[in-house]
Parts: sequence; structure tokens; C-alpha cells
Amino acid sequence: MYGLIGKMLAQPGKRDELIQLLMAGADAMPGCLSYVVATDPTNADAIWITEVWDNQASHQGSLKLPAVQAAISKARPLIAGFGERFETNPVGGVGLAS
Amino acid sequence: MYGLIGKMLAQPGKRDELIQLLMAGADAMPGCLSYVVATDPTNADAIWITEVWDNQASHQGSLKLPAVQAAISKARPLIAGFGERFETNPVGGVGLAS
Repeated sequence: MYGLIGKMLAQPGKRDELIQLLMAGADAMPGCLSYVVATDPTNADAIWITEVWDNQASHQGSLKLPAVQAAISKARPLIAGFGERFETNPVGGVGLAS
Repeated sequence: MYGLIGKMLAQPGKRDELIQLLMAGADAMPGCLSYVVATDPTNADAIWITEVWDNQASHQGSLKLPAVQAAISKARPLIAGFGERFETNPVGGVGLAS
């Protein structure tokens, strides 16, 4: 499996709008086993995204899906930048979609 | 919802044994919506754990479960330390157990 943990920074006041776009694009991504969007209690503009994919190719492929490309286009002006980013290799656990 | 993203560092050579203990303790935790254990491609001793709980009280309560306490006792000697740790407030997404 392939995992990503990353922090995205929204333009001031745009966090919740950006979250809605991130989640709308996430519901039909082949190979996506987990995609959780969270706010950050220490930063009102920050969003944490944790992802688990069956493999890295599925993640790369998702970026080419029309729905995801449309979401990225709408989201881009709302993004101020990025924070921490970690790649992982998930082994197992609870809450991985089958 | 309440989330945790954290890095645990195993004693040299003990990572996979520690992962097995972490996952064995994770399969019957009330209020746990996601608990994913991952290795780190940049550090052979590191483990990433990403968790989603219905609320913070469920996470606290899990630490008192007999199965979890037993796992913690077995795991403690295998742990060398901890790395990054971030609390989050998950909003939604894919792969949250119902």
C-alpha cells in the first residue's frame, strides 16, 4: 500500500470551502482505501489530509480523473501553500476500504 | 471527530514486531473509526500511526482496555522514542468505519 500524510494551507477564511472541494473529489477514486480530511486545532487555515492507496500508481492515476482535475482547478485559488508532507507504506489496521 | 497522526521509533530491528503488537491491539476499540499503521520509506525504524476516533474520550478510553494495556506492556520495551505528533479534527472522507 502507499500512503500520504500532508498539510495544506488555505487562503484566510477559505479553509471550509477548500475542504468541501477536497471531499467532493474523493468519493470515486479507484484504489483509494482511505482519504480523511481534517482541520488543525492549532491553525485555523490548515487542513490535514491522510491517504491510503492500494499502490502509488492508483494515487498518480487519481490525479488524472476528470472529477479530480475539476476539483483541483476550483481548489487551486483557495490554496495558500503546503506544510509537512510524509510518504508512508501502510501495513494494515482499521478503516481501510475494501 | 478526533484524530492523531504520530511517528513512533522502534528499537533497531524491532519495527515489524512492534507493528504486529500495534495492530493486534487495534481490532476491537469502541469509537475507533480508522487506525492505520505504516512504515516509513525514509527510516527503517519508524512507524506512522494515523487514527480517527468519534471523539477524544473514546481515544482516552481505549488506553484503558485490557487488550490495549496488554499490548502496551509488550510494546514498551520495543519503543525507542517518538517523532512528530499532530492532533487533528477529522471532518470526513473515505474509509471511516461506521
